[in-house]
Amino acid sequence: MRVYLDHAATTPLRPEARDAWLAAHEVLGNPSSIHGAGQQARRLLEDARESLAGVLGCQPIEVVFTSGGTEAANLALKGLWWSRAEGEDAVVLPDGEHHATLDVVQWLASAEGATVRPVSLDEGGRIVPEVFAEALPGAALATALVANNEVGTIQDAAGLTSAAAAAGVPLHLDAVSALGQMPVDFAAWRGAGSAASGLVTMSVSAHKVGGPVGVGAAVVSRHGRLTPLVHGGGQQRSLRAGTQDVAGAAAFAAAATVAEIEREAQSERLRGLRDRLIAGIRAGVPAARLLGDPTDRLPGNAHVLFPDAAGETLLFLLDMHGFAVSTGSACQAGVAEPSHVVLALGLDERAARSVLRFTLGRTSTAEDVDALLARLPEVYARAVASGAPSGARSDRAS
Amino acid sequence: MRVYLDHAATTPLRPEARDAWLAAHEVLGNPSSIHGAGQQARRLLEDARESLAGVLGCQPIEVVFTSGGTEAANLALKGLWWSRAEGEDAVVLPDGEHHATLDVVQWLASAEGATVRPVSLDEGGRIVPEVFAEALPGAALATALVANNEVGTIQDAAGLTSAAAAAGVPLHLDAVSALGQMPVDFAAWRGAGSAASGLVTMSVSAHKVGGPVGVGAAVVSRHGRLTPLVHGGGQQRSLRAGTQDVAGAAAFAAAATVAEIEREAQSERLRGLRDRLIAGIRAGVPAARLLGDPTDRLPGNAHVLFPDAAGETLLFLLDMHGFAVSTGSACQAGVAEPSHVVLALGLDERAARSVLRFTLGRTSTAEDVDALLARLPEVYARAVASGAPSGARSDRAS
Repeated sequence: MRVYLDHAATTPLRPEARDAWLAAHEVLGNPSSIHGAGQQARRLLEDARESLAGVLGCQPIEVVFTSGGTEAANLALKGLWWSRAEGEDAVVLPDGEHHATLDVVQWLASAEGATVRPVSLDEGGRIVPEVFAEALPGAALATALVANNEVGTIQDAAGLTSAAAAAGVPLHLDAVSALGQMPVDFAAWRGAGSAASGLVTMSVSAHKVGGPVGVGAAVVSRHGRLTPLVHGGGQQRSLRAGTQDVAGAAAFAAAATVAEIEREAQSERLRGLRDRLIAGIRAGVPAARLLGDPTDRLPGNAHVLFPDAAGETLLFLLDMHGFAVSTGSACQAGVAEPSHVVLALGLDERAARSVLRFTLGRTSTAEDVDALLARLPEVYARAVASGAPSGARSDRAS
Repeated sequence: MRVYLDHAATTPLRPEARDAWLAAHEVLGNPSSIHGAGQQARRLLEDARESLAGVLGCQPIEVVFTSGGTEAANLALKGLWWSRAEGEDAVVLPDGEHHATLDVVQWLASAEGATVRPVSLDEGGRIVPEVFAEALPGAALATALVANNEVGTIQDAAGLTSAAAAAGVPLHLDAVSALGQMPVDFAAWRGAGSAASGLVTMSVSAHKVGGPVGVGAAVVSRHGRLTPLVHGGGQQRSLRAGTQDVAGAAAFAAAATVAEIEREAQSERLRGLRDRLIAGIRAGVPAARLLGDPTDRLPGNAHVLFPDAAGETLLFLLDMHGFAVSTGSACQAGVAEPSHVVLALGLDERAARSVLRFTLGRTSTAEDVDALLARLPEVYARAVASGAPSGARSDRAS
């Protein structure tokens, strides 16, 4: 039996997305070409842009298709940085952000002269809007996750965007892990007005909602000022050059549309499965502890601390039994470092090496959960017996 | 009847690429995930990397998958720029380059302090290696097309790379329009040695060889020094972050492999069709003139000057009759400017508005060519009657 509990890393392609991708290839033409074939492709592309805009709560012209969430975050943050006002050099970066924004800000600091203003999280992984607001005055830009991709905590997006608007600072929201899991509404978060500050950009990714990998979008407010990351042909408001991927855009729009239609019912179902999982873990492994906010969390996310066991050992043992889980973000898998997100919750390095993330998705069933729960106590006991996580040997361990 | 003669803009998805894309989606897993599902995806990805490396004449580790040729060129040029030696600020840019490199260099000049050293073309669109070499000493980097995407002229890639190696300057080659049409061999062009100069990077795109749009690669020499364009998770030697598109990579590799197997036979066939097209144009429209190098040109490319007719008018009239052709690069379609490539051949602005590019591909037939030839004289006469190109009214026209 193979059980996939890593839907946050990637989730199966939806049939609707596959069909849209195949159908788009029946049309031969570069959407930038003037001839009829090109214009037919262009119509497919603009239909996809309009559908996706509907799901994201923005205007079609604000959708800039990219190769994924990471490129979208790079476009947003570097684009805002290169277009910042003279004299502004601070970037507001909450702790525990995804590497797609964290590594960009670190590069801006090391190579481009940015200074980083960190914002600490509370013990549930929450960015407190008042604390965030204190870091904003005079900053060049700010960034925040809508929902944490590791521990699943849902942030107060409206509170963060209001704070940025009040401070006159351009804000990027990373909505990659939020899309399809909770309401995402760019216009509602941004509010009215034509300021080039407040919520200006938002990144999303297709493969997290059942679209193909290699497709994403940056929502860029009509009022935003952004330098392109990728220069070339003047596609997409000259914000993102390169032949536009009509089939990818159509597949993304199809997946996001179905995900949005199913969202409330699916979230309800996933919350039920997840709570069954959490309750079962507590019953079978009483020492285990749920991390992240207990209630304001993504419906499919259970992020659990297993004291005295190495997360990697747990992962390998579960994998041997056919269960796919993760120790954190797939983007950092294989990197032998404790999770910076867990450290940001105020836990020590040993704890940050003793966690597993279980993420349920569209294809997850109660049988999947029960099969895991049947195995977990034995696996945990073996992992504890095989030794504490390596973090215990580190200076920072306690 | 619909006849597609714009294969340089985009060319049909090959069945082998479609099948590889669909098959890759049977494997669910993020290739960065540690578990078995992730590692299965990883194997598919690395198989694709190896196949593509075989086609490109490089090592698998040198293949960095991107979202296309434009992103690959941006990674290469900006990456080389940001990693350049202290005090070097010149970028060597031949005239008539694709906007994917031209616009990058113009941004480096306007925003990042680069100085541009132009290299003029001969009247056939050829970059003369000796002229190129004169611009190289002390430059931070240089770039060149392997084959011009508009007029089809094939450059002396070996001569250009030797010149860059001799000057100790890192060179980027844009092989997007060359791949599948002529021999492309990174290692042969680069030569031996571990220098961080000479040929260092090369960009290619999947959809020009029958792969999907939204997939490409930058070949980055193991010895190159490059700053990433997209930061985040440490994928692909940390040169290009973002969840790796296994299906796109597999589809690209499948398309490139078949294209390479068929290349010699297909090129022979396309040269025959193209020469039939050129001879027929000359017979039917005696005033027409082939631009670009008459012999060293891409096998499917016929780029023709139609005196006293506006290229856009010709394009629209042909489109009404079901023929898809272009006035130049699709990436600049809709932009009301004369082709900078034609200007670089030494022709005036009026001429640069009087051209059509016909590009034949895998699905082109003799019937396609004959159907076009049957229509062209009448279409040309109508275009001439409807007025000279707008460039004739410009100051630069003669």
